Amino acid sequence: MGYSDFRHAVSSRLTDVLSVVPPFSETARDSELFQEFIAPAVALSSGGKRTRALCVAGGFEAISRQTQNLPLHAAVAIELYQASALVHDDIIDDAETRRGIPAPHRLFAAQHEQLGFIGEAALFGQHSGVLLGDYLLSCGGEEFAKQDAPDGAFRRAFALFNEMASETAFGQYMDMRAEFTPLSNDADCAVDDAFLVLLHKSARYSIELPVLIGVALAGGDDDAAARLTLFTRPLGEAFQLRDDELGIFGDPAVTGKPAGSDISEGKRTVLLALTRQMCTQAERTFIDQRLGNAVSDTDLAEIQAIMRSSGAFERHETFIRDREDRAREHMPEHATILRDLACSLTERRF
Amino acid sequence: MGYSDFRHAVSSRLTDVLSVVPPFSETARDSELFQEFIAPAVALSSGGKRTRALCVAGGFEAISRQTQNLPLHAAVAIELYQASALVHDDIIDDAETRRGIPAPHRLFAAQHEQLGFIGEAALFGQHSGVLLGDYLLSCGGEEFAKQDAPDGAFRRAFALFNEMASETAFGQYMDMRAEFTPLSNDADCAVDDAFLVLLHKSARYSIELPVLIGVALAGGDDDAAARLTLFTRPLGEAFQLRDDELGIFGDPAVTGKPAGSDISEGKRTVLLALTRQMCTQAERTFIDQRLGNAVSDTDLAEIQAIMRSSGAFERHETFIRDREDRAREHMPEHATILRDLACSLTERRF
Repeated sequence: MGYSDFRHAVSSRLTDVLSVVPPFSETARDSELFQEFIAPAVALSSGGKRTRALCVAGGFEAISRQTQNLPLHAAVAIELYQASALVHDDIIDDAETRRGIPAPHRLFAAQHEQLGFIGEAALFGQHSGVLLGDYLLSCGGEEFAKQDAPDGAFRRAFALFNEMASETAFGQYMDMRAEFTPLSNDADCAVDDAFLVLLHKSARYSIELPVLIGVALAGGDDDAAARLTLFTRPLGEAFQLRDDELGIFGDPAVTGKPAGSDISEGKRTVLLALTRQMCTQAERTFIDQRLGNAVSDTDLAEIQAIMRSSGAFERHETFIRDREDRAREHMPEHATILRDLACSLTERRF
Repeated sequence: MGYSDFRHAVSSRLTDVLSVVPPFSETARDSELFQEFIAPAVALSSGGKRTRALCVAGGFEAISRQTQNLPLHAAVAIELYQASALVHDDIIDDAETRRGIPAPHRLFAAQHEQLGFIGEAALFGQHSGVLLGDYLLSCGGEEFAKQDAPDGAFRRAFALFNEMASETAFGQYMDMRAEFTPLSNDADCAVDDAFLVLLHKSARYSIELPVLIGVALAGGDDDAAARLTLFTRPLGEAFQLRDDELGIFGDPAVTGKPAGSDISEGKRTVLLALTRQMCTQAERTFIDQRLGNAVSDTDLAEIQAIMRSSGAFERHETFIRDREDRAREHMPEHATILRDLACSLTERRF
């Protein structure tokens, strides 16, 4: 089973998991309310690139050197965890859209109005979203426990799954906390801090840890894991740095998120820290005043221009290229899935 | 190891789990922020009766007929899950206090002011709480995976752990959703709905499922599980019905929650549904107008009086007694921990 087939298998299993009414639902009333509860997760999960699921398969292939019996349940578990994290993340950012449709908590809020509920629709949306995210995280654990593997390999892989979720929650806290911190003029420190957030919030979770879960399931040892990390760590960092660029320069039709959302959410990205370090005092004031507020198209265009003219964008591109080059040097052999994945993430030959 | 010793062992392990800086924390800055992030969970977890942990031990003893090698990690995992659920529940209810101290999201909000952060303290508190709850749930999975048990027993127990978390998230959704639903005059339906919420949100999760996790870890079969459920299901229902009475009649110094919080949060409990069914039209209007709003001491006393004079309180007491009697009939033999637990929950001899 290759790259594309596995991706389809993951999507198909994900649909099954979310459409089955769980065993605790004993009455018709239960089923009816359960369908209502799960609907925003079904909508959310119909999209997505399944990057993390493919990383699990890729880590497994890199050790077992074949693509038979790829760990489907563990891969689907990670996609369920990803859905959980996205639902909570969108509440925290009060995001409007995700994957091109209204964010889950906004789907719940719309439901509030359709059902003629009392109280605040926005609150109902947020609270439902918190609980849906919790449900999806438990679902992820349940799905992971279905993964066939020798006991030792299963336990190591499952420990990594939980460490991934713990680290990402902490990384999200660091990220969110930074948005509440007064802007500092210690620019070096700001770049370091932004890299630390990037590592914990996203870089390890997007590539490195899913790959290590696949490695553990295939019975790979610590040396094999360490070798693969030389490839996955820089690839994960490059992936998130590129994502941050798309948060400012991306086309909403492609990213599924509104243009300039990282500015309006006040995200303290590496790109922002570099720009504030390299631009003029007047430009910095201009940016600082817009950070964390709704941003007009004109202001966004001005911020994009500052990022380019200050040299910050080019420096940021260098950061990405350096990491992609390092990943390419450590590209594992016998790893068709990871190779295809790296190509699709970087849109360059590996 | 008996009842009290196991409770102490759980508390001690819980403190250890929450005080260890996790392996992903590589820098001094990481550690510093991690301590800040985890502090409200440490405060929260210093209290609590460890009921669910004791249920795991009790289920294990009921099958293995001894109290050696009780499943500590699984029991601590359930307490971590419980902490996670409480943090999220308190955000949803915007609770002021929990276990006699400020609710976790309010501790974060206070931290926001101490650190001189920008933006809204309440938002920072809520968002931090969402992430802390996520962290604690993953921590629970991590701790569960440390439980020593044969592979088959471990997988069955772990499936129950995740089903418990999934069902409770859905039950919480039903509970929260009910608060947004216009009050109905179909009183029978309201009592049925309240019982359904009670089952999914709390009754199974508080006693039945933790006991079944202990049963699974001890290698108990389906028959043994079904026999114990005859005891745990009514005990769990009685436990939550009693908790709902305390939500109206309880002393804040004992419950750790403000008096009448179930009224101000607009909770649709069985007790409320019974009262609305049995009181006069004028009394019902009085209650309906206060539901979901801050409630004065005078109004709370009036609502308590209506609950008593309408006969709803006595009917509710009958519901509790019936369930406690049924539990008593099915009290398992060779189960010292479950017996002690049932006594402490009902304050009556088992």
